[in-house]
Amino acid sequence: MTKINKEKIKVVAFDADDTLWVNEPFFRSAEARFYQILEKYVDKKENGKDFTEELYANEIKNLHIFGYGAKGFMLSMIETALETTEYKIEGADIQKIINMGKEILAYKIDIYPTIEKTLKALEDKYTVICITKGDLLDQESKVARSGLGKYFKDVHVVNEKDPKTYQRILNGLEIQPEEFVMIGNSLKSDVLPVTDLGANAFFIPVEDQWALEAVDEDTIEDKKYIKLERAEEVLNYL
Amino acid sequence: MTKINKEKIKVVAFDADDTLWVNEPFFRSAEARFYQILEKYVDKKENGKDFTEELYANEIKNLHIFGYGAKGFMLSMIETALETTEYKIEGADIQKIINMGKEILAYKIDIYPTIEKTLKALEDKYTVICITKGDLLDQESKVARSGLGKYFKDVHVVNEKDPKTYQRILNGLEIQPEEFVMIGNSLKSDVLPVTDLGANAFFIPVEDQWALEAVDEDTIEDKKYIKLERAEEVLNYL
Repeated sequence: MTKINKEKIKVVAFDADDTLWVNEPFFRSAEARFYQILEKYVDKKENGKDFTEELYANEIKNLHIFGYGAKGFMLSMIETALETTEYKIEGADIQKIINMGKEILAYKIDIYPTIEKTLKALEDKYTVICITKGDLLDQESKVARSGLGKYFKDVHVVNEKDPKTYQRILNGLEIQPEEFVMIGNSLKSDVLPVTDLGANAFFIPVEDQWALEAVDEDTIEDKKYIKLERAEEVLNYL
Repeated sequence: MTKINKEKIKVVAFDADDTLWVNEPFFRSAEARFYQILEKYVDKKENGKDFTEELYANEIKNLHIFGYGAKGFMLSMIETALETTEYKIEGADIQKIINMGKEILAYKIDIYPTIEKTLKALEDKYTVICITKGDLLDQESKVARSGLGKYFKDVHVVNEKDPKTYQRILNGLEIQPEEFVMIGNSLKSDVLPVTDLGANAFFIPVEDQWALEAVDEDTIEDKKYIKLERAEEVLNYL
């Protein structure tokens, strides 16, 4: 059983999307409507095409130049629509795709039930920060719209959540790995790169997980993180 | 004549696009090719439409949700194309627009002549940083591709270069305004918000300036910055 030495902890970091608030379901809903648009042009069953695979293939192809976030998602949806319909998609449907992306960029923030209570309890004892990936403006706007900004000493919007990125943040904070704990919903981005550094991590899974973030938990032999159901459970450890 | 008290300076900050390397001409070239595409559908002279104005209007309209950078530029071009052609634009031309944006995201960095010499001379005496706005991944990728990253202690990619943003950076560095100097090509983003705080600024104009950044220098009564022709001239002051 993994333990956390709470006497050592100085900085508690939260992921944002799907850790502090609901995010992925907005993308899922947009995808569902996107597939409906495509089905006007291509009979899914007849040609056996799987639009999900086409879209994910484009997202992966574009990730190195677009990065994470809604703008890249919109552009990958448009490219997928062009290819899938053999460039026959109508302008009005392209506009619908853009509008769906704009909705994602403006959605009403729905904070998870125990988040604010947890942040309030932590802020007196620790430096609390937020580490999130995605579009800079979009992520900062969501923190602002959530009203949770006041709990965070800093909000780091990063391109990739790998050990190098976490190490850079630890260096900036002038702390050791054992003084840091990360809380998030993604094993790939919030948990494994953090425990790789010897730092602490809480994993709070959500039902909807983006395919590009998915890691099968059963494949992890040496689990150095603590799995929770709700954010407030971190208060049992910190 | 504005002077810089070089004994006090601790941190020297550079803007990136069009200060360290050529950037705006790539956008201008894309715009020119974009207008050519539109002219296949709409006779510019007959209906008197000005595509430049249409594009800029969309860029301004979308700025608060897309932010600065090439991805928002691509999406604004697509929206402009849809509207201008009354949604008749063909899929293949939408793909051309996306490809033009992808070219901007991968252009070969062309560093201005005296930049590296200047950075080398400054790095021994000062903390040198980069402050740039745009898409996070794109801006960090350009710094990496330029090979200039080694000269910067930190690269700040920000949403907006206003006095509040600069103040936040000064707070993070724990320095006073008189200990800071900013170098850049935009009066609006690199110079005026910095001198507003009582900090120092060098203005190095370039020929191509994005319309949304344009400030008529003649309208500034009290010029608290120093205007230069080339980056290496900062070494006469620092």
